[in-house]
Amino acid sequence: MSDISIIGTGNMARTIGARAIAGGNTVEVMGRDQAKAADLAKALGGGATTGEWGTAPAGDIVIVALLYDGVVPVVAQYGDALAGKVIVDISNPFNSTFDGLAHREETSIAQEVAKAAPAGAGVVKAFNTVFRHVLEKGRPDIFIAGDNAQAKASVEAFVESLGLRPLDVGGLKMAHWLEGAGVVTVGLANHGMGNLDFALGITELPVRAND
Amino acid sequence: MSDISIIGTGNMARTIGARAIAGGNTVEVMGRDQAKAADLAKALGGGATTGEWGTAPAGDIVIVALLYDGVVPVVAQYGDALAGKVIVDISNPFNSTFDGLAHREETSIAQEVAKAAPAGAGVVKAFNTVFRHVLEKGRPDIFIAGDNAQAKASVEAFVESLGLRPLDVGGLKMAHWLEGAGVVTVGLANHGMGNLDFALGITELPVRAND
Repeated sequence: MSDISIIGTGNMARTIGARAIAGGNTVEVMGRDQAKAADLAKALGGGATTGEWGTAPAGDIVIVALLYDGVVPVVAQYGDALAGKVIVDISNPFNSTFDGLAHREETSIAQEVAKAAPAGAGVVKAFNTVFRHVLEKGRPDIFIAGDNAQAKASVEAFVESLGLRPLDVGGLKMAHWLEGAGVVTVGLANHGMGNLDFALGITELPVRAND
Repeated sequence: MSDISIIGTGNMARTIGARAIAGGNTVEVMGRDQAKAADLAKALGGGATTGEWGTAPAGDIVIVALLYDGVVPVVAQYGDALAGKVIVDISNPFNSTFDGLAHREETSIAQEVAKAAPAGAGVVKAFNTVFRHVLEKGRPDIFIAGDNAQAKASVEAFVESLGLRPLDVGGLKMAHWLEGAGVVTVGLANHGMGNLDFALGITELPVRAND
């Protein structure tokens, strides 16, 4: 069981919040619009609470569920209120044609979050390769990356509480390539798959082996 | 049934050659060392032949199975001998720490191959996310990218002849992110999975859905 705070009141906040509660975690919702946060907390049920925007979150794990260009500014705004927290970046900084990233350099939102976060916060990239409705209804694999082993272990335990499999791909530098895996996922949706009813994941050798 | 030429005589050449023959395709092997090429062709059986290095390949699909830094120079060396061919780049240009690509810019070996290839050749990225022994023994998904629809369709038909699922991720620009998916695959092997007995692939919603 983990104590989760979610910054954001949109679709991903709702979906992760619902799964978190179903998995036996406590959930706090923080929104710029306090009424929206209260509405979401009420909709989530399960004892979900609201916290005041910009103040120290109640949860040990803080999931920033905002559009990618809002993530770093909001982490900077929270500042020391995030000291000691595990900060989870789930964003996809797609370019305008959805075949690359918006960054001009080889970085990631998660790496930029780490620069903006207070010392002692652990930053983890996770959940970004999963379409929202697959996270709502399915059991997608959850890729994670981070430099802080303890933070990563916390997120792994949380992911497992959702009945999902966490898959550690390495250090925070790998967040760049997880964002790239998000690009691949959208490419598949637009080309080979032609739909959104799938997730990028791991197929173990025995699963489809026939020889 | 496709006519395949493989440039290279290493492990990936042998593995792809063996699966190609098992799938009912014809295979030609081209090696700098003609004796090595002849040895591999003999080992493959199934009527596999050898071609002379640098001359026009017999196959319509030419798979360049070389270490990444050899791919572009060899395509340039072949030059017009590759006119009208489908050129398949399977390489992984990892950096020395295996957590990124060796390119200094946002490109891919496949995109550089397209610059070096004769006009009319169709370049496709494929097979790079798959560990050799998984390709040998399992049924991994095969991600592909390319700008030439006809070339991509040829490669898809070839992949299907191997009993594998081709997954189109989009244009050749996406080869950069497939190379990144190769980085993620190695990251998983070194961290979350701790072994090489898996492939990055697609898990459809129903496969693991439980709610």
